[in-house]
Amino acid sequence: MDERLTKQLNFSLEIDKEKNVLRRTHLSGGGRRENDAEHAWHMAIMAYLLREYSNEPVDISRVMIMCLIHDIVEIDAGDTYCYDPEGVKTQKERENRAKERIFSLLPADQKDALTALFDEFEEALTPEARFAHAMDNLQPLILNNSNRGADWLEHGITADKVYGRQSTTALGSKRLFAAADEIIKENILRGSLPEKKRE
Amino acid sequence: MDERLTKQLNFSLEIDKEKNVLRRTHLSGGGRRENDAEHAWHMAIMAYLLREYSNEPVDISRVMIMCLIHDIVEIDAGDTYCYDPEGVKTQKERENRAKERIFSLLPADQKDALTALFDEFEEALTPEARFAHAMDNLQPLILNNSNRGADWLEHGITADKVYGRQSTTALGSKRLFAAADEIIKENILRGSLPEKKRE
Repeated sequence: MDERLTKQLNFSLEIDKEKNVLRRTHLSGGGRRENDAEHAWHMAIMAYLLREYSNEPVDISRVMIMCLIHDIVEIDAGDTYCYDPEGVKTQKERENRAKERIFSLLPADQKDALTALFDEFEEALTPEARFAHAMDNLQPLILNNSNRGADWLEHGITADKVYGRQSTTALGSKRLFAAADEIIKENILRGSLPEKKRE
Repeated sequence: MDERLTKQLNFSLEIDKEKNVLRRTHLSGGGRRENDAEHAWHMAIMAYLLREYSNEPVDISRVMIMCLIHDIVEIDAGDTYCYDPEGVKTQKERENRAKERIFSLLPADQKDALTALFDEFEEALTPEARFAHAMDNLQPLILNNSNRGADWLEHGITADKVYGRQSTTALGSKRLFAAADEIIKENILRGSLPEKKRE
């Protein structure tokens, strides 16, 4: 096996570790916590199925690969809960170090390609990155909704926080933001998502 | 939310169950058993990274979506171990029923599209389907190799069986079959894959 293929297979083995990075979201049916690899798989299929709702036309293969790799850095940096302000402060620096280490396992051209895709997702300026972010927001919403808001209730998350996160959904898909809005309102109504923190 | 989007989101929620379908393969580091969603995620990224080795040019978005959905039927049909001849006998019928039920959750056009992709993978006649099969074979091989053949040893699998399975790898990628062959030979040499069953 030559050096190039050896590097590609070493990287392929390394990312197996993403299956051990747990998120806060629980699987539907109130099961165990979801891991990053499962979340990415779910997002990529949803992107494929829901691509007709993107605000702008997208190259679906770029959206899918962005969805699939967007959390690889969490192998080193861990999952940062989007509603944890302290974690979010140090997230960028931790993830930059991880990005350098992990993508450096690849041949140089593929290191550059995956780094560029990862950065594109993070910057969220292209139609593909914006649609991928809509999936990153919508996927845990449908799980949490199916569990009657159990993750929000467990972590004391209020509707304003959820709307804050879902605001980027509208940049990728106004139609899917409207659907998210509907789901959020239902959860407020049934008491599974408090509107504001009680003083 | 209109009927179309409701169906798409219901399907998206249904496939969450694939995360509970366990395979025989263990994660690298001798961890727990892998599930179908993780396996599919891993295959799709490997397809993207290794696409240069396909025998024929492929539309990578079609390869990726095939990888991502190829095990959805196992939500109902369960995982059939490829080295279990009894399970393999009834696999087709169980999976056909599952395919009908699960893809019928989608709007008719997407039911047809996903069913066609699923069937294309199963038939393994197109360059995309053949390359996806190479990933389906190579991904557990690198995990099992990293665990020094623990899954083969646990189930008494011999090299002739592994070669039987990997024969379809060559139809998708001669180059990756050569790499698989190298990995198999190393495992035979170090005693983690017996050449033949002892009488």
